Amino acid sequence: MTWDEERLARAVLTCVVDPGDDRLAGLLAREGAAAVLAGLRASHRDDVWPRRARELDPACLVERTRAHGLRFIVPGDAEWPTRLDDLARCGQLNGMGGVPFGLWATGPGDVAAMSAQAVAIVGSRASSSYGERVGADLGVALAGGASGRPVWTVVSGGAYGIDAAAHRGALAARGPTIGVYAGGLDVAYPLGNADLFERLRGECVVVSEVPPGHSPSRRGFLARNRLIAALATGVVVVEAAARSGAKNSAAWADLLHRVVMAVPGPVYSVTSVGTHQLIRDGRASLVTGPDDVWALLAPLGVADVDVTRGQARLFDRLSHDQQAVFEAFPARGTTTVGELSVRSGVPMAGCHAALTALVSLGLIAASGDGTWRLARRAAPGRPVGPG
Amino acid sequence: MTWDEERLARAVLTCVVDPGDDRLAGLLAREGAAAVLAGLRASHRDDVWPRRARELDPACLVERTRAHGLRFIVPGDAEWPTRLDDLARCGQLNGMGGVPFGLWATGPGDVAAMSAQAVAIVGSRASSSYGERVGADLGVALAGGASGRPVWTVVSGGAYGIDAAAHRGALAARGPTIGVYAGGLDVAYPLGNADLFERLRGECVVVSEVPPGHSPSRRGFLARNRLIAALATGVVVVEAAARSGAKNSAAWADLLHRVVMAVPGPVYSVTSVGTHQLIRDGRASLVTGPDDVWALLAPLGVADVDVTRGQARLFDRLSHDQQAVFEAFPARGTTTVGELSVRSGVPMAGCHAALTALVSLGLIAASGDGTWRLARRAAPGRPVGPG
Repeated sequence: MTWDEERLARAVLTCVVDPGDDRLAGLLAREGAAAVLAGLRASHRDDVWPRRARELDPACLVERTRAHGLRFIVPGDAEWPTRLDDLARCGQLNGMGGVPFGLWATGPGDVAAMSAQAVAIVGSRASSSYGERVGADLGVALAGGASGRPVWTVVSGGAYGIDAAAHRGALAARGPTIGVYAGGLDVAYPLGNADLFERLRGECVVVSEVPPGHSPSRRGFLARNRLIAALATGVVVVEAAARSGAKNSAAWADLLHRVVMAVPGPVYSVTSVGTHQLIRDGRASLVTGPDDVWALLAPLGVADVDVTRGQARLFDRLSHDQQAVFEAFPARGTTTVGELSVRSGVPMAGCHAALTALVSLGLIAASGDGTWRLARRAAPGRPVGPG
Repeated sequence: MTWDEERLARAVLTCVVDPGDDRLAGLLAREGAAAVLAGLRASHRDDVWPRRARELDPACLVERTRAHGLRFIVPGDAEWPTRLDDLARCGQLNGMGGVPFGLWATGPGDVAAMSAQAVAIVGSRASSSYGERVGADLGVALAGGASGRPVWTVVSGGAYGIDAAAHRGALAARGPTIGVYAGGLDVAYPLGNADLFERLRGECVVVSEVPPGHSPSRRGFLARNRLIAALATGVVVVEAAARSGAKNSAAWADLLHRVVMAVPGPVYSVTSVGTHQLIRDGRASLVTGPDDVWALLAPLGVADVDVTRGQARLFDRLSHDQQAVFEAFPARGTTTVGELSVRSGVPMAGCHAALTALVSLGLIAASGDGTWRLARRAAPGRPVGPG
């Protein structure tokens, strides 16, 4: 990594602008980071951004980065996870949004490669032992590629409870996992999970949009949730109370057209109230284990269903909306849930349910980037033949 | 109850024709039961129906009915639950269907009055302690009218597991509950639930379409499930394995346009696999307790939501399909889910989800007979004002 002027300017901007504040996004796209930073420094206004921009010593930031063994990944780098660029187009939540200026990272893992096939597993910090078992089992199976299934990188926030269980499951399976933190990577957070932080940075990778030396803020946690959702193809909410950060991650995933999944639990458990709400309101697909997650996320041709046998009968057994969604697929190329909803007349929630069924039947497949396409042998608009 | 010719002929027909066999339905509607029975007796064919019709001694059946303290309710009686007539129009499942010739009954409860506001609670015989707790809690709350809520009669099948838990909950709350049995009411079935059978017949009511002296058959259990669904406004599946009778009840409920509900549970529990399937496939609304059930079943004006406050904002917050379903409501009178689906373009599963939300917002209400209407203050096709 070389500290060219643009990279350094972006690094400084992460110290100047709060995470999730995208008011500079347009200017940045037009003029570049160096010009934006120069403009702030030259400003005569006594606002917080110009003041911070003038006061910060870039050399100090570079030295701190080196001292803590960090790197700073920016758009255009081979290690830049291009999924994050979706944040430029998805809109805002709680007044936050936007592509981060860059990602502070440390660890042997390549963030771009690891996030190419990644699923977020999130949930309550105040989790139940049931939820922790589910989180750990999902982490083991998805990151470990159990039963010969494809390996999915487990993305989570390194927090107590479900996050930690999912990370630990992935680490136990020696699978890939990314810790996405809300504070600077010079300090392990939360302190009680310092061992987890060290294992993640030692064996995989940890990332943050917040520079070293900055503590996580309440705003930072909400901004961080958008990165977790953006880095993944789908988000599994394992446990969530009625009001919870995990539901915020689900909302980001929805905004980003990621696959939103939620795990049910005992109705007497307060930590399942939020997941039941997500399912009941049609905002998440119910998943009961790694098989359901694989089916929903499976890239083209991976769903292990024999599609040559009895497809005509299979088509006849589809429900009205499953048929409508299936017939809304283009013969070639990919499409989004939004397009399918418009073309089929089936609302988004219904489309998600139909897609689940069609994937498990082997008729369609996820492309791995949030879009969907026909499985190789299926063709829409007619009963599906054996050819 | 007087044994006029028509009632006696219908009683004899329950001994001649297997439960759920509706091949005589058309003839019965045109010519009446006495003529149908006379025709069978006069037939020269050596089929099972003519043989049974000739061999049966009606006097013997009348005596057995009297001896066991039973009554036989037929269409036209004040105690006839007219909901059962929906079975004439809903089609078949597993080759079975149709309105029963009559209902054998015993107990102080009035079947018509009790089923006017009734909810079925069904589930696995091989239930978990979790499921039994849910079933009992639902029975207590719904039949007991907990927290000043309206009383709902609990309909179930008297079986081990969830059925028994729901009945016992209702009895514990001194609420109304109907046991719908697959065999003749002269014998308690299953024997291990004889105490439950005796309590139901002593304090509430038990019914069967099968005459005294007949044991329950495998076919009889499936035919019985249609009566459970038909007698209720909605069916709650508390626990169900992947293949289970409870899912058969849910299928009948769907066919009858009853509200189908399912309770989630731990993903590691085999007895929740079936309920999770029903929810995932959009065939049941997820319910977590009596409040959800009340909201879905609440008759006009009962949903305790203040509908005068901020309805305009409320309408703006509806999802695309919730708006579409709401606008598909007629200004006056009731409508069915099927009609709403056609008019709104939202598939059935999506309609159910939207109805749940609209009920809980106080915009629409269930009429108590499986149809839906606008709540008093709501009007479709325009932002909802405060008037």
